[in-house]
Amino acid sequence: MTSSGAVALVAHETPLVLAFLRRADDALILGHRTSEWTGRAPLLEEELALANIALDLIGQARVLYAEAGAITGQTEDQLAYLRDAPAWRNALIMELPNDDFAFSIARLLMVSAASDLFWRAATASTHAGLAAIAAKAEKETAYHVRHAAEWLVRLGDGTAESHRRAQDALDALWPYSGELFEVDAADRALIDTGVLPDAGRLRPAWDAAINDTLARATLTRPSPGWMQSGGRLGRHTEHLGHLLAEMQFMQRVYPGATW
Amino acid sequence: MTSSGAVALVAHETPLVLAFLRRADDALILGHRTSEWTGRAPLLEEELALANIALDLIGQARVLYAEAGAITGQTEDQLAYLRDAPAWRNALIMELPNDDFAFSIARLLMVSAASDLFWRAATASTHAGLAAIAAKAEKETAYHVRHAAEWLVRLGDGTAESHRRAQDALDALWPYSGELFEVDAADRALIDTGVLPDAGRLRPAWDAAINDTLARATLTRPSPGWMQSGGRLGRHTEHLGHLLAEMQFMQRVYPGATW
Repeated sequence: MTSSGAVALVAHETPLVLAFLRRADDALILGHRTSEWTGRAPLLEEELALANIALDLIGQARVLYAEAGAITGQTEDQLAYLRDAPAWRNALIMELPNDDFAFSIARLLMVSAASDLFWRAATASTHAGLAAIAAKAEKETAYHVRHAAEWLVRLGDGTAESHRRAQDALDALWPYSGELFEVDAADRALIDTGVLPDAGRLRPAWDAAINDTLARATLTRPSPGWMQSGGRLGRHTEHLGHLLAEMQFMQRVYPGATW
Repeated sequence: MTSSGAVALVAHETPLVLAFLRRADDALILGHRTSEWTGRAPLLEEELALANIALDLIGQARVLYAEAGAITGQTEDQLAYLRDAPAWRNALIMELPNDDFAFSIARLLMVSAASDLFWRAATASTHAGLAAIAAKAEKETAYHVRHAAEWLVRLGDGTAESHRRAQDALDALWPYSGELFEVDAADRALIDTGVLPDAGRLRPAWDAAINDTLARATLTRPSPGWMQSGGRLGRHTEHLGHLLAEMQFMQRVYPGATW
């Protein structure tokens, strides 16, 4: 780790590679967390819904890794399975453990609402590969937002217990929301050339969407306060290490899976 | 448990209800086991494939539970989440832990090859609901067979290590294959009226399909021997109890999930 806190453990981590990795890692880690609900969801219908959402996210990760790998000369599996935690670029909110169902739903809403705005804006990217990925991803995340919002309203406007759990989840997650809109120097170069949307400018639309859902859910928007940061540069919680240990076990035991 | 070993913990467990439950439980338990690979598979592409297979199986379980529940007056979620192990009717092979990748693939092949033959035959069922379910399920299981067979050939005809693991998996699984073709008195009544295919008569076609794949995989078919039994009557391994504890936790904490 350099003194600036920046870590470049991925070969040729140019701003464009970094941009693809950040989105790919977001999708894969949240996809992994979402898949953990399969076989544990409160309803069979919800098992299928969450498993489908996990599939969408893992699918998004694959095409984003393919774009990054086309530049660095790595395969999607090398990028997914052979990087240690400091080389991961996902926002910290993705890696937090699922906790209870309310927590997972509140996270899915917060993240998907931001992703949906990002992908919608990215359909106009000057990078043809990114624009094509965005066009498909936007349709998927639009559904993820609707699904999570319906559940959050059901939880918030449900029993005293479900309301309390939903509010606790929101309060715990809120400090992780700032990272979804961070823009650094690497992003800036790409924003100026029309490759990347300016994530910072998506915040007002996200606020409006979240406020609308919270009102319907009779939940209180947490006060703004100190925000967590660091995931985009590879400074992660201990939870990512545990998740990677599980996710990467097979590839590390059988490198290249050439069996 | 009665002295005959038969357990009827499901309300109104007529032969038809039992037939639906046996197939539904097979699909849900194997779907659960398959979903456990999400986030742990050796390749990203394989994560998606296994997650899709799990989705197919859980989807099959839902429609089968709906048919059973229409007779007993229970919902699919009551059937999936509120029965204790002795009321489960799946074949024992479904509930065995995943062990290594070779074991999971060998099981998927053995089970899917039997299911595919069953569903294909059941498309001619005199029960319109079962025939409709079978028409969709057969397309899905045909793909599961192809996917598992491709992998088993890759493993068996791969490295010395992958060959050994695949052979060990086959040997361990073989005693559980007999249950896939069991026919009891409850089935017989439905077979005679054209509702159910005669599972026992599917065995030669299964043998041929398995032998063909094993030959391509350079694997040795295990010798016939003593066969496990009991799952169809509710006598399960300890593994089912652990699986149900995880799967049913949410519904039992929040009955009806009315939050």
